[in-house]
Amino acid sequence: MLNYPTLQDIRDAQARLKPYIRHTPLLRAEKMERALGCQMYLKPEMLQITGAFKIRGALNKSLSLTREEIANGIIATSSGNHAQGLAYAAKMLGVKAVLVLPITTPRIKIANTKSLGAEVILYDGDTAARWKRVREIAEAHSYAVVHAFEDPLVMAGQGTIGCEILEDLEQVDTVIVPVGGGGLISGIATAIKETSPSVRVIGAEPALTPKYFHSRKNKERTSLPLKNTIADGLRISVPGQNPYPIIEKYVDEIVLVEDEHIVAGMRMLANDAKLIAEPAASIGIGALLAGNIKVKPHEKVCAVLTGGNWDLCDMAEIYKVSDGNSAIR
Amino acid sequence: MLNYPTLQDIRDAQARLKPYIRHTPLLRAEKMERALGCQMYLKPEMLQITGAFKIRGALNKSLSLTREEIANGIIATSSGNHAQGLAYAAKMLGVKAVLVLPITTPRIKIANTKSLGAEVILYDGDTAARWKRVREIAEAHSYAVVHAFEDPLVMAGQGTIGCEILEDLEQVDTVIVPVGGGGLISGIATAIKETSPSVRVIGAEPALTPKYFHSRKNKERTSLPLKNTIADGLRISVPGQNPYPIIEKYVDEIVLVEDEHIVAGMRMLANDAKLIAEPAASIGIGALLAGNIKVKPHEKVCAVLTGGNWDLCDMAEIYKVSDGNSAIR
Repeated sequence: MLNYPTLQDIRDAQARLKPYIRHTPLLRAEKMERALGCQMYLKPEMLQITGAFKIRGALNKSLSLTREEIANGIIATSSGNHAQGLAYAAKMLGVKAVLVLPITTPRIKIANTKSLGAEVILYDGDTAARWKRVREIAEAHSYAVVHAFEDPLVMAGQGTIGCEILEDLEQVDTVIVPVGGGGLISGIATAIKETSPSVRVIGAEPALTPKYFHSRKNKERTSLPLKNTIADGLRISVPGQNPYPIIEKYVDEIVLVEDEHIVAGMRMLANDAKLIAEPAASIGIGALLAGNIKVKPHEKVCAVLTGGNWDLCDMAEIYKVSDGNSAIR
Repeated sequence: MLNYPTLQDIRDAQARLKPYIRHTPLLRAEKMERALGCQMYLKPEMLQITGAFKIRGALNKSLSLTREEIANGIIATSSGNHAQGLAYAAKMLGVKAVLVLPITTPRIKIANTKSLGAEVILYDGDTAARWKRVREIAEAHSYAVVHAFEDPLVMAGQGTIGCEILEDLEQVDTVIVPVGGGGLISGIATAIKETSPSVRVIGAEPALTPKYFHSRKNKERTSLPLKNTIADGLRISVPGQNPYPIIEKYVDEIVLVEDEHIVAGMRMLANDAKLIAEPAASIGIGALLAGNIKVKPHEKVCAVLTGGNWDLCDMAEIYKVSDGNSAIR
């Protein structure tokens, strides 16, 4: 098996997922255009089943495993949305799901994962230690491990978003994708660049965890100390081993976004597009608001909004300072 | 001209509006189903252009007037969303729009109306006095008056929502529609009952302004003192003259919803469907949460969510008390 998805893998994923997931609508966001300086389109994956895109990759992988491989159950670690996606997939397939989540995971993501019938283990420790624990449990119980971004079938599942964008907006000029582990953007970039190479694919990464940005500068995978960006879904200290070369090949630019602009993006999406976007989902709009991506007035720009799973009372803290006009420039 | 729309009028409106408005998606809301006790579908008109359904009626009417009739401008009074719809229509047609709004209109609705280039007059007085002012201004300047719910072409425009629901969910059993002046539900009920008479159409009205509920009981249009329901979009003291007989003919049931259940509906839509819904839009979910509508587990129920235009800082007040689980039963 290759360690990257081909365009055909992504098309296969699309066919495999079709009966189970939602082809989310592509929404034109007229109200945001004056402030952002381009023709703005949104791919709102918070409207996806489980409230985030992760179901695509988790389900594509789970459906590709044999009944024997998943008989005892599936296990993963996740900052929360992959956990919900995998729990949903396991429930659908009638097998057990065990999710090892960081102790800092938003309550809504824990509650949603549990309500899908999964066993949740809260773990207090860094990513490497958490993964060690996952492998120990997997070995002891013969669980199948589904990695959130290293697995090519997971990347292929996430890449179906790229196919849907091209189907719904053939003339798209630029696609902005949030960058965490890199599974989403490597899938989307493969789908887009192998179909329409002239479309610009831009990764948006929190300025507090600029691992892909620095890896590109250093020309090698670079590990950075984990800082506490508000975008919990993107808190990763080192680029994924398998996504990294795909991103170097296909992603035109990695831009950094400060937390304050991520927050401004959350407000703008609520105020102008009526969508509840979690911080990670708002980073592309934040990048545009901060002027970190060069765009032209007639350029068709699509921002992938990854999910909307964040505690509503925390969302209220973000929304309450709004003056009814979220534009910051 | 008839004082009610025919099914053909609604189909004509659909063809007329097609190039300009959004056929909003019909979203299955799996996460809400356990709490609500039915198969739940949402018609999210907050994703419509201008953030509310009102553009449908306002634009259908405006496009039906002659260039001469609208040459000097268009005028209306509105609790806010009709104002934005009409301002958008006027801007599109290159004519002036004058909107007379109650002094209590949420700031976001005022700001959005102004940002569409309309002249806004804030008026402190009851509906009858406000209408008197509108007619004086219209006469003095030869403006065309576009009534928010009495005009059959406006009702026909709103009725296109009914056609879209039937197109996207042929087997729908029940449609729940918020009731303010009655323009929306009379259009939708006409579209649905004249196509699929067995589909149940239910109107949801704030318990604080139960005008249609009492008019049905009294078998005549009944005016009630205006009380301050949180659902600003539904604050009307007397049923519309033209919508009333249509509603008596086609709407199966009018249910009342307390403000606390409207608020619970807002939270549930944010938490589980990731949609920003203004109070008026959340009343159908509130009715189900309160157990005011009898539903069965396999019943396909569609709630029309009318819009999402509410000040974000007020929305924060609603969201902040959430415990991450909006179900109240």
